[in-house]
Amino acid sequence: MIKTIEYVDGVVRMIDQTLLPSEKVFVDCKTIEEVGHAIKTMIIRGAPAIGVAAAMGVSLGADSISASNFDEFFAALEKQCDQLGKSRPTAVNLAWAINRMKQVAKDSKNLPVSELKVRLKEEALTILTEDISINKAMGQHGQTLVESGNVVLTHCNAGALATAGYGTALGVIRASIGAGKNIRVLANETRPFLQGARLTAWELKEDNIPVKLITDSMCGFFMKNKEVDLVVVGADRIAGNGDIANKIGTYMVAVLAKENNIPFYVAAPVSTLDLSLASGDEIPIEERSAEEVVNINNKRMAPEGIEVAHPAFDITPNKLVTAIITEEGIARPPFTESLKAMAQKK
Amino acid sequence: MIKTIEYVDGVVRMIDQTLLPSEKVFVDCKTIEEVGHAIKTMIIRGAPAIGVAAAMGVSLGADSISASNFDEFFAALEKQCDQLGKSRPTAVNLAWAINRMKQVAKDSKNLPVSELKVRLKEEALTILTEDISINKAMGQHGQTLVESGNVVLTHCNAGALATAGYGTALGVIRASIGAGKNIRVLANETRPFLQGARLTAWELKEDNIPVKLITDSMCGFFMKNKEVDLVVVGADRIAGNGDIANKIGTYMVAVLAKENNIPFYVAAPVSTLDLSLASGDEIPIEERSAEEVVNINNKRMAPEGIEVAHPAFDITPNKLVTAIITEEGIARPPFTESLKAMAQKK
Repeated sequence: MIKTIEYVDGVVRMIDQTLLPSEKVFVDCKTIEEVGHAIKTMIIRGAPAIGVAAAMGVSLGADSISASNFDEFFAALEKQCDQLGKSRPTAVNLAWAINRMKQVAKDSKNLPVSELKVRLKEEALTILTEDISINKAMGQHGQTLVESGNVVLTHCNAGALATAGYGTALGVIRASIGAGKNIRVLANETRPFLQGARLTAWELKEDNIPVKLITDSMCGFFMKNKEVDLVVVGADRIAGNGDIANKIGTYMVAVLAKENNIPFYVAAPVSTLDLSLASGDEIPIEERSAEEVVNINNKRMAPEGIEVAHPAFDITPNKLVTAIITEEGIARPPFTESLKAMAQKK
Repeated sequence: MIKTIEYVDGVVRMIDQTLLPSEKVFVDCKTIEEVGHAIKTMIIRGAPAIGVAAAMGVSLGADSISASNFDEFFAALEKQCDQLGKSRPTAVNLAWAINRMKQVAKDSKNLPVSELKVRLKEEALTILTEDISINKAMGQHGQTLVESGNVVLTHCNAGALATAGYGTALGVIRASIGAGKNIRVLANETRPFLQGARLTAWELKEDNIPVKLITDSMCGFFMKNKEVDLVVVGADRIAGNGDIANKIGTYMVAVLAKENNIPFYVAAPVSTLDLSLASGDEIPIEERSAEEVVNINNKRMAPEGIEVAHPAFDITPNKLVTAIITEEGIARPPFTESLKAMAQKK
């Protein structure tokens, strides 16, 4: 399995997810700005992977600061973090990772600046290894919801490539297979960025997990024909009431699942919870470039001079969510209570 | 406006809809086989346009037959028609047009073969002009359902390019604008063939009708945000009970419309009704090549060696359909009665 992201010798190396599966190109980031650019342009994407990249970016940023005392150092670090925090607005893991790194700096303010930089590097690497452990724990909880013979529909890529490894939604699939269950995956291609076709299909194939690729518009057809047993997707941010921000189209999948009495599960780490928000209405929805919708493989597919929209995420209301799978257990409605309980276990 | 299809001097000329909007190339068919190929490869598509093309194809086929008497002529014609009828299975207009042409031949069996051929050519041209009139009548009925200020969501292309001209669903939009209503269109791109991005956006822009293009996965987002007032789509076949076969993704749109209390209308000529079928379960769903899903602009977007599905149509159950707009009026539930009444008006 190709490593999504690693951090060695002052370089954050990530596989360029805009080029998979046809090209396997690694991008080396040596500055926090380069990491921010990689996040913004989706060289790396997926809420947990963005969190890991951000932590590593903060460490690179810290290394670049020449300061003789903590206050000077921290002021420079905060400035860098503010900039990095703007790279993508919807996934809360970005802010979560940055805040965690800033907290580590503050907690270590009595250390010499050079040791503080080492401490931040260690924290970034801890976030990476923790992410994999969290995904495996999530997978163990999630696989109890899956039966042998099931077909699992997923949208976008909430896999190894969206995390430090193993995956959230695809972690549930990997854990189910690890538990000896014979399951198959139906993958939405996930326009416009085609994370399903390019990333989910690719990483499942690498692991020899049976996958059938469909366009997003086909998932209702297969649900209605009773060819889907459950849905598992990831999340970019979860409000306190269980409303889910995730890749555009997730709401569509959830409504179709409800119509066809199919369970709709969300797999996401506790770091994706944003209990400060009462509902999904407060989650900012990133509007990306129209070019990403109309230009496919360098060819414009629609006429010039028309309006094109590109909301990159949507909100799935909690009433459509059967359960939320976290590393601390499975949260069920009412989510206001169950999500708080998950967060308190940390 | 570019003519979708015309028939002059023994040549059926159609605009190649696989190349729009970037290239405007016309394809000349001189034999019934060439017309069948154009239908199969979607150089021409859209249920009513397929019907018109098929009628013209039958006329070309008739012209090629050397026969000294009717029986000999008709046997050869039937053989050709059987082949043409297999070009695409879901749209009933193909069979409808072929049967109408065969009936004309049978009704004129006492004519000399040379005159019979002239009669068939006239009938094909009648089907073309009738189709435009039918669309305009449908538009007049349909526009009564649209209010000024409305945003109309449509899927696929049920426009001038899907018919001999004017369109079915887009005919309703054109008639609404003709009646002085200020409306805007939200167009699903319609993967995998991108009829929405390539054809609907293009023909609306040509007519200066405001259109916003979205991916199929975004339509739920805009419905939930109260940015859609009604849905109008076309149909490839309508069963006696009002179940609708239409482009893959139509079912998705209908379920999302129901969830958001948005009226879901189907605009289709009476020739699209197949009252011989009790329900949509009996409508054959065409499975097209997986290549059309994974290859975009000559680049494979998914890994090799995975399964890919491509059902080209889906069935929207009658319970999700608010009304069916025909040239004879607007049919409302219960459709078993109302559709029969529409057919009897012909």
